[in-house]
Amino acid sequence: MNRSAEETIAALDLHPPALRWVDDHVEVIDQRKLPFERELLQLRDVDEVVAAIQTLAVRGAVTIGAVGALGVAAALHAELPSNLEACRERLLAVAEGIACARPTAVNLSRAVYRVRDIGLSETSPGAMRAAVLSAAQRLLDEEIAATVAIGVHGQELLGGVRHVLTHCNTGRLATPGLGTGLAPIYVAHSRGQQLSVLASETRPLGQGARLTAWELIDAGIPVRVMPDGAGAWAMRRGMVDVVLVGADRIAANGDSANKIGTLAHACAAHRHGVPFYVLAPSSTIDLSISDGSEIEIEERHGDELRRTRDVPLTPPQVETFNPAFDVTPGELISAIVTERQILWPPFELTAADLGID
Amino acid sequence: MNRSAEETIAALDLHPPALRWVDDHVEVIDQRKLPFERELLQLRDVDEVVAAIQTLAVRGAVTIGAVGALGVAAALHAELPSNLEACRERLLAVAEGIACARPTAVNLSRAVYRVRDIGLSETSPGAMRAAVLSAAQRLLDEEIAATVAIGVHGQELLGGVRHVLTHCNTGRLATPGLGTGLAPIYVAHSRGQQLSVLASETRPLGQGARLTAWELIDAGIPVRVMPDGAGAWAMRRGMVDVVLVGADRIAANGDSANKIGTLAHACAAHRHGVPFYVLAPSSTIDLSISDGSEIEIEERHGDELRRTRDVPLTPPQVETFNPAFDVTPGELISAIVTERQILWPPFELTAADLGID
Repeated sequence: MNRSAEETIAALDLHPPALRWVDDHVEVIDQRKLPFERELLQLRDVDEVVAAIQTLAVRGAVTIGAVGALGVAAALHAELPSNLEACRERLLAVAEGIACARPTAVNLSRAVYRVRDIGLSETSPGAMRAAVLSAAQRLLDEEIAATVAIGVHGQELLGGVRHVLTHCNTGRLATPGLGTGLAPIYVAHSRGQQLSVLASETRPLGQGARLTAWELIDAGIPVRVMPDGAGAWAMRRGMVDVVLVGADRIAANGDSANKIGTLAHACAAHRHGVPFYVLAPSSTIDLSISDGSEIEIEERHGDELRRTRDVPLTPPQVETFNPAFDVTPGELISAIVTERQILWPPFELTAADLGID
Repeated sequence: MNRSAEETIAALDLHPPALRWVDDHVEVIDQRKLPFERELLQLRDVDEVVAAIQTLAVRGAVTIGAVGALGVAAALHAELPSNLEACRERLLAVAEGIACARPTAVNLSRAVYRVRDIGLSETSPGAMRAAVLSAAQRLLDEEIAATVAIGVHGQELLGGVRHVLTHCNTGRLATPGLGTGLAPIYVAHSRGQQLSVLASETRPLGQGARLTAWELIDAGIPVRVMPDGAGAWAMRRGMVDVVLVGADRIAANGDSANKIGTLAHACAAHRHGVPFYVLAPSSTIDLSISDGSEIEIEERHGDELRRTRDVPLTPPQVETFNPAFDVTPGELISAIVTERQILWPPFELTAADLGID
């Protein structure tokens, strides 16, 4: 790990952090209320973990993976059958309940099944609980290190860059650590590079307007919020040197699911010759799918579009199209940056790219 | 004028209409409050007309042109100097004050200067006032007829079309009459063609979410509201047969200024082979500018992005990029439809295209 990147993460650590393990449960910041209120949620069982993920109190592919894994540990702390077989059944049920909370990001099910499988190999309830917790904490540490490595690799792509466009929130709230899309910005900033960020607000839930704006202001990095539809115009006006986004799932051919609105920025970037980089940990790559058509896209409730709190935005009963994600085809992506390397097109991702022999 | 189009407009007439002349002033619907409240504003002098235009109580290039022209008449009704020279000076000042209320749409200044010049040719204050009102009402009638003709021409492009994407509001609120971008939809609907519309919400002010949704529901045309960033994904999923948008100013080479977010849809449409049509009256074409780089783009207050009514959406002091419009280059436009004809690329617009010899 690069020393200034280490210093960066230390200096930027959230107070309180986006998520952490406390005694026998998971504690998270309620991201729905940021930056207006800093409310902590205690997640002690499957229902609470699933609700936090589904309501987007915790969000971001890597964060929900880590919360899911720690959530399995919390559920075993909440109730641990004394009989080994019952304990295994509980572990299986808990993992299944949490893994399915949201469908698009591969990180959630992958993280949950990883700690489940480690737990299942144990031979006593107590050992199972301890192994699950230890595996979840190890996964958390790995994800933090991965974000720093993504930032260091990604920063190699920012030579001469002054103006970055980003979408949604891919920073210190989307992952433990430095984030994915924002990680290179933090590393560059820590090395003295002057950058400014255009953050598209990310309707309907405002992850760009609320979370990216908040965490960049907190870090002292200049940021401007714009409507999602303004990205193409900013590019046409020469206000964008590079686009940095995250991903929720990446297929073997590079097709990348990410927050709705990403594909629109990718089309505009392609048209205007602006490099478009996807940054994500290897755990986001899903080699079991050959292309993006196999990625299930979550459709969310129309009320997200119909009102903001109690302010109505549309006629009350209007129909909506409210997909949470879209899929950007690999041919619109200039490079994919993981914690291991920079991957260049054409993308034909293999187990070797994930460090799997 | 096509008979069913005439019937369409009669059946669809807004109650109350978006704008009309009453006795000695202009009456408009306050579009900021639609569809939640139907509040009428009485505009009796320059300040009221300018405020209504600048606050977007009235909006849409053609509507603000018509309101501007009628607003000049209202101002002369509010105060008519008995001396001819003073009356001319007042007319000049009134016209100048209203014409500059918003910079991007050419229709406003063009409409205002047209009625001003007709008034200036009169030789008594009373005749001046009458001539200005009569000219403004003639302009209003012409604009209504133009929207029907746009609808009829535009409908020729909708053969086999089922699914339309549109942006902002380009219907019966954006113009007197049938609108521009939505006019072909009304004509097609009146002729029994089954169409459904995807309306991008149009942040930050929600003209799509509020106004387009409202007027299409009112007309019995199926409509779904989506985030602005979802247009590209809808196209990629094959949910869009054609994009129909309006314009606020069109340069001689076809470059078209329209509501921010239009260019993003155009880039996505081009990428996905979806026809992208711009619909506008000839009065929107500005031959004095050769390309879009000469179009002044209004930058609006950041508070439009920072809150919705009193609900905060961003950190309170965040910087913003909030252009009201963008410019779509002619090469991304499949055709421009006016009340006179369908214009095909490459666009080299001339006075003949505007019916000027």
